[in-house]
Amino acid sequence: MSQTKQRRPKAETPKGFRDYFGAEVTARKEMLDRIARVYHRYGFDPLETSAVETVEALGKFLPDVDRPNEGVFAWQEDGGAEGKAGDWLALRYDLTAPLARVAAQYRNDLPSPYRRYAMGPVWRNEKPGPGRFRQFYQCDADTVGASTVAADAEICAMLADVFEDLGLGGDFVVRINNRKVLNGVMEAAGVLDPSDPSKFEAERGIVLRAIDKLDRLGEDGVRALLGEGRRDESGDFTKGAGLLASSADVVLAFTAARRDTGAATCAELRRLVGESKVGAEGVEELEEMAALLADQGYGSDRVVIDPSVVRGLGYYTGPVFEAELTFEILDEKGRKRQFGSVAGGGRYDDLVKRFTGQAVPATGISIGVDRLLAALQAKGRVVADTSGPVVVTVMDRSRMSDYQNMVGELRRAGIRAEVYLGNPKNFGNQLKYADKRGSPVAIIQGSDEAARGVVQVKDLVLGARIAESATLEEWKDRPAQVEVPVADLVATVRGMLG
Amino acid sequence: MSQTKQRRPKAETPKGFRDYFGAEVTARKEMLDRIARVYHRYGFDPLETSAVETVEALGKFLPDVDRPNEGVFAWQEDGGAEGKAGDWLALRYDLTAPLARVAAQYRNDLPSPYRRYAMGPVWRNEKPGPGRFRQFYQCDADTVGASTVAADAEICAMLADVFEDLGLGGDFVVRINNRKVLNGVMEAAGVLDPSDPSKFEAERGIVLRAIDKLDRLGEDGVRALLGEGRRDESGDFTKGAGLLASSADVVLAFTAARRDTGAATCAELRRLVGESKVGAEGVEELEEMAALLADQGYGSDRVVIDPSVVRGLGYYTGPVFEAELTFEILDEKGRKRQFGSVAGGGRYDDLVKRFTGQAVPATGISIGVDRLLAALQAKGRVVADTSGPVVVTVMDRSRMSDYQNMVGELRRAGIRAEVYLGNPKNFGNQLKYADKRGSPVAIIQGSDEAARGVVQVKDLVLGARIAESATLEEWKDRPAQVEVPVADLVATVRGMLG
Repeated sequence: MSQTKQRRPKAETPKGFRDYFGAEVTARKEMLDRIARVYHRYGFDPLETSAVETVEALGKFLPDVDRPNEGVFAWQEDGGAEGKAGDWLALRYDLTAPLARVAAQYRNDLPSPYRRYAMGPVWRNEKPGPGRFRQFYQCDADTVGASTVAADAEICAMLADVFEDLGLGGDFVVRINNRKVLNGVMEAAGVLDPSDPSKFEAERGIVLRAIDKLDRLGEDGVRALLGEGRRDESGDFTKGAGLLASSADVVLAFTAARRDTGAATCAELRRLVGESKVGAEGVEELEEMAALLADQGYGSDRVVIDPSVVRGLGYYTGPVFEAELTFEILDEKGRKRQFGSVAGGGRYDDLVKRFTGQAVPATGISIGVDRLLAALQAKGRVVADTSGPVVVTVMDRSRMSDYQNMVGELRRAGIRAEVYLGNPKNFGNQLKYADKRGSPVAIIQGSDEAARGVVQVKDLVLGARIAESATLEEWKDRPAQVEVPVADLVATVRGMLG
Repeated sequence: MSQTKQRRPKAETPKGFRDYFGAEVTARKEMLDRIARVYHRYGFDPLETSAVETVEALGKFLPDVDRPNEGVFAWQEDGGAEGKAGDWLALRYDLTAPLARVAAQYRNDLPSPYRRYAMGPVWRNEKPGPGRFRQFYQCDADTVGASTVAADAEICAMLADVFEDLGLGGDFVVRINNRKVLNGVMEAAGVLDPSDPSKFEAERGIVLRAIDKLDRLGEDGVRALLGEGRRDESGDFTKGAGLLASSADVVLAFTAARRDTGAATCAELRRLVGESKVGAEGVEELEEMAALLADQGYGSDRVVIDPSVVRGLGYYTGPVFEAELTFEILDEKGRKRQFGSVAGGGRYDDLVKRFTGQAVPATGISIGVDRLLAALQAKGRVVADTSGPVVVTVMDRSRMSDYQNMVGELRRAGIRAEVYLGNPKNFGNQLKYADKRGSPVAIIQGSDEAARGVVQVKDLVLGARIAESATLEEWKDRPAQVEVPVADLVATVRGMLG
């Protein structure tokens, strides 16, 4: 019949995107719902902005300095009949940029401070890689308009409560650091002049990028970048910040300043920032946060001052936080390692200023939804209902109403149930279907059973176990299939579901 | 300081998009959660596809024949280093096109029939209008791979259950029609030749578009379009289908064939389709659906056969359904009218065929999320918690830990609470903030109260009522503010929250 040989469209998810089925959707939803309940209890309000923003409002690039090439999905609007150039629109790349826009747009209407949480997909126009997708979920909570570190401490306490509520008590730690301390260290190292903050900007940029690579390059690599520069394995040379060896030592000592107690860590930081005013301020902020948290029962088992938290120091302006899960998993090579970071955030006081010219203090956290979900799954803490429906099979197509009434009764009793709606001719296909759905129970009623007012109730979970088990002995008292009066259908199914 | 006079970005939502705050988000979420619970009980599994599809998979245009100009948001990918042309990507315009892609892509892995539901935003590149946005939610449930009308009946029953669960029992009706009956009527009217289905295609297109305009043009306008054509007020002429007056009568009689009972309606339809085989098939399908539904207790008070349901007849291939809310609201001119349609759907057997060449039967429903939410709000049926948090005010900045401990205690008791984190200097601002948040209760503890171990608990709801009321008399026994020992804080707040 195909005279015109038209090419058929490919049924494919676009490169770097994926689909989520059944339990993948419900497990994530259950996790996000639980997080939202904690946020709500803390007085945070939900905000849902649209996926689309103007490129102007969004800013053209991601905040991560190391990734200037990676961008957003953007397109230009039609300009309309007058031939004007249309606006450039783009998909949001995070939930913070839309918050900045909202905080500026509704600044006269929103309560101040404005506590909001947001959960939803964001998009990155990046080269997809294994396990790295171009659409993924973020889950953020931010407080806009509060300059006190009590707001930062609150975010950390809330984060700890989230992990407790998710069943990860004892398995996490929130580590805090402070950008101002690093600024103090930069002063001590001679690359920040408080009387002329614009001086040495390039050098400070190199310092920030260098310490951000501590994990990857190790102390020696970072020391080279802090000094003259570093030649990598490929022979490429990266220019360094030009610090004296003694100054590089101060910077490296900062990242290694964690001691056994918060007080000892702060003493070491105080030593490193020397005479710097901003440095002292940073240490005081750390102390104040730790004290507020300790007073509320969040001790150093859950929140610690840790200057080795360097991620985001280039972006944030005050306290910086990172949440890590401390239990061990096996990596792809079978080696044990800690699960690692699942959330990060901090204080960023300049975000709204882009729009209004006025600095507005803000602090917040972003949870990596996919990583946290993976952690919950690794710990067996996902409680989403993943069981399939009870399947009522169809032996006799003309009695569809009878079968529909059975599922109706099951559903009214709160039991997930459905009638097999494929072609009923091949009964084996019906049981294969039930298997594919993960159905716990199948109901069977042929004309003979119907005449006698009974149904067969088949325990598919038990059936599968019997099929697997070598010794039938242990199952002999529990038949995998029972015949019961129709009136006992719900009770029998409920018994099998346990 | 602004030496470089850089233009600031505008803090604006893009044209046709909007933001959703607080209770707007939670009310919709609560509604969708309840709908999802019904879908889940019926054995439907969630599916979440990405917002982005290839234009190839999506198809270039919306299915609505009347809107060829309205399209999608699309952009072309970079082709990469080799200079190849990149793929065209687009935001999904509905949830059905992605389902078709998924059903084709995973056809060997999905259970068959595949029951799935999907909820999420879709995007239309349309001219925005008042109340019409370019991003909005859809909420769909579809069964792919079931050719029996029992699947269509199940969708209708599920839809009825959704309305019942949402508290709209007695306020809705699901109306069903069938495209095959219309095909039978087309045969009877001489514009469909079963032996050569490609004949009269243009005429049938005109007939479909004409009856779709019944609401807007009335019977005379449609009769003109079925015949020679119609000249509108502006003088423009639309060519008609060229039907004889007697044939036009048959088509119009079809749309008006609803009688007091389903049986009478079907008898009238049977008369109108005459000898047409496909017409008779359509009538039988309607009868079978009505019988299945009646057997399950969904009588004509909830599901009716109604041939005046014409929306979507051009798109669907068998049963067509539309759900209407029957309670009255006042329109923008203050006139009473029925709330109207909130969901529509039907059977579409050709959707997956685009990809695979094989026809796969499918049927489903799409709920208009915004309209249904508006209906629930009009009926006062939205139960989302919209109350603000208890606000613990800050009288003494140095005792932040005390205030934090109060909110901690309230939260642990399940009460939404927060400390005021703005500048505490002006106490009036703190109460204004509590008012803006819709806080039911404010807590006050100055140094004097702290020394005595007490707190002031202020009932803001009662306070507002007293402020409004002319006679203070009725409130005199209920003070709007009480002083209680710190130990009684939770109990006192709980009492005020009622």
